[in-house]
Amino acid sequence: MKTLTEYLWFETQKKRELVRLTDTVAQLVKKSGVKEGFALVSAMHITAGVFVNDNEPGLFDDIWAWLEGLAPEKPEYRHHETGEDNADAHLKSLLIHHQVMVPITRGLLDLGTWQQVFYAEFDGQRRKRVIVKVMGE
Amino acid sequence: MKTLTEYLWFETQKKRELVRLTDTVAQLVKKSGVKEGFALVSAMHITAGVFVNDNEPGLFDDIWAWLEGLAPEKPEYRHHETGEDNADAHLKSLLIHHQVMVPITRGLLDLGTWQQVFYAEFDGQRRKRVIVKVMGE
Amino acid sequence: MKTLTEYLWFETQKKRELVRLTDTVAQLVKKSGVKEGFALVSAMHITAGVFVNDNEPGLFDDIWAWLEGLAPEKPEYRHHETGEDNADAHLKSLLIHHQVMVPITRGLLDLGTWQQVFYAEFDGQRRKRVIVKVMGE
Repeated sequence: MKTLTEYLWFETQKKRELVRLTDTVAQLVKKSGVKEGFALVSAMHITAGVFVNDNEPGLFDDIWAWLEGLAPEKPEYRHHETGEDNADAHLKSLLIHHQVMVPITRGLLDLGTWQQVFYAEFDGQRRKRVIVKVMGE
Repeated sequence: MKTLTEYLWFETQKKRELVRLTDTVAQLVKKSGVKEGFALVSAMHITAGVFVNDNEPGLFDDIWAWLEGLAPEKPEYRHHETGEDNADAHLKSLLIHHQVMVPITRGLLDLGTWQQVFYAEFDGQRRKRVIVKVMGE
Repeated sequence: MKTLTEYLWFETQKKRELVRLTDTVAQLVKKSGVKEGFALVSAMHITAGVFVNDNEPGLFDDIWAWLEGLAPEKPEYRHHETGEDNADAHLKSLLIHHQVMVPITRGLLDLGTWQQVFYAEFDGQRRKRVIVKVMGE
């Protein structure tokens, strides 16, 4: 059995941003030497997410508008009594989920044609990270 | 370590449909020979989901109504400027999530009494697939 | 390859409750002897969830209010025609998701500083359980 663990660091320029990770994850899988297995891609923060969907800018706008509608930024959260102002980012993280498991087959990410892995930053402009953990043989 | 990879193909008659996968996944786990491990069940499309819940038709209606309320079909999505008309299917996929990991114990799916694995088609009537990847020993 | 499977039992005093699982999962990982691998933490019921987020009581209130807003308790669900009254608990489970995969590195849970694993009970006051399945080497 082989494993590989790497951490991807992000410091997005905007507070909210999507970063496509597919190629980076594919490179780490290659580096791992794993031919059959799984690659976990998981945010290590509670105000960020990781998801799989389409690499289409119009859809990105739709996703942001949708997240804002279902988990809006607003002052009236109990979490803000601690001095924080990012409760919406926590809820957006729960909604989109913070991790995906990518199957690896014959040494490659076994994704559908249109599937891309994204990091979703909901409270950026500071250093944050994602763990990529590959396990298999 | 053993692995098994299979692809399940779907071409639903309706645009939106639920397909119960539990028995198929259980058969693939048996075929794999894995006694202790994990079975990833993951949609390979960005307009479909995989989830675990109850096999109860009334609840299916509730799930569909709920998904439609939170991620409605409507013309006004930026994604539709590309000529597509299925942005709601992308959002429904993000909401329900596109994958589950089923634990395998003593060669069987280690699910609770009422847990069933479902494929959720949000934009069907064409050939789409799900990967089942089993890993363990 | 090593695996360990344990079941955590819950009988919450309230109908809805959050239970922090991080330390218990960490102990099971230690017990497993796995140094590099994954720990799946997965609810075995369809009216409960497992998620990773912040251990902050104000945020707990925000999460409950948010879940209630997006998946409200109300009489008018088709599922209730079966005699059940907990359709909202099913939808809350789908929204928050029923499982997480925790990476294990050098024998420890490889979580970010603020990441905690929670069990979310949406229909409690009876015995329910979570599977923790550790796999690695």
